[in-house]
Amino acid sequence: MKAKIQDVRMHKLPTFKDSRGVLTAGESHRDFPFAVARYFVVYAVNGGAKRGEHAHRECHQFLTCVSGSCSVEVFDGLATKAFRLSSPEEGLHIPPGIWGVQSDHTPDCVLLVLASHTYDEKDYLRDKNDFLSFVGKG
Amino acid sequence: MKAKIQDVRMHKLPTFKDSRGVLTAGESHRDFPFAVARYFVVYAVNGGAKRGEHAHRECHQFLTCVSGSCSVEVFDGLATKAFRLSSPEEGLHIPPGIWGVQSDHTPDCVLLVLASHTYDEKDYLRDKNDFLSFVGKG
Repeated sequence: MKAKIQDVRMHKLPTFKDSRGVLTAGESHRDFPFAVARYFVVYAVNGGAKRGEHAHRECHQFLTCVSGSCSVEVFDGLATKAFRLSSPEEGLHIPPGIWGVQSDHTPDCVLLVLASHTYDEKDYLRDKNDFLSFVGKG
Repeated sequence: MKAKIQDVRMHKLPTFKDSRGVLTAGESHRDFPFAVARYFVVYAVNGGAKRGEHAHRECHQFLTCVSGSCSVEVFDGLATKAFRLSSPEEGLHIPPGIWGVQSDHTPDCVLLVLASHTYDEKDYLRDKNDFLSFVGKG
């Protein structure tokens, strides 16, 4: 069963504020539907750069901007949808089989990505035609 | 076997820089010795605030400053050690049974913490005497 554009969902994360500052937390199988095997942070992104531009065969991802903001465009082979990530209090779950592109990063943008799998180059679909074949739209 | 101060270790994380920006990645069982069940980010911390001031019975944590910097002091019931976290390119593994305190956050500090367990208040040791009993120094 291939993911569809409506399976890409923004999740609101529990946030606790007190006199010392702010804490936002996300849990596996509560705020995103996978256990985390890998994380990465993307930062110091040059204005105008596009990042991502690939899909995954099996890997789920959860994206949250923990500083600044950036745009994320997702594509299921048929429909496109755009999101703006601008707060640690929300995160975007991108299931496998969805093409994703990030752009318009602010200079202070720090994008945190949690992934369900460790790094495996074979899991990446980096060619748009390979992706379209994978999702049955080739 | 209780953790000792030398079990609290700073890990250097793989970092990839190109014309688009910087990406730093951390993987379970490679860069830190646990699978991630929960993450949280701490930000907008008021100058002078101390955070943490507890230990965990079972939960491992991995701390990395993905923006700005902060200090972390750890205590195993006998010895104390201080670290400064100031880059996404490094992270501090704190095993269970170690008392930790964070302080001296810069205004732009975003501290990312990865945890081996979901939230469970019963896993927290918030009283210093309870902690000292737990580690056999009460």
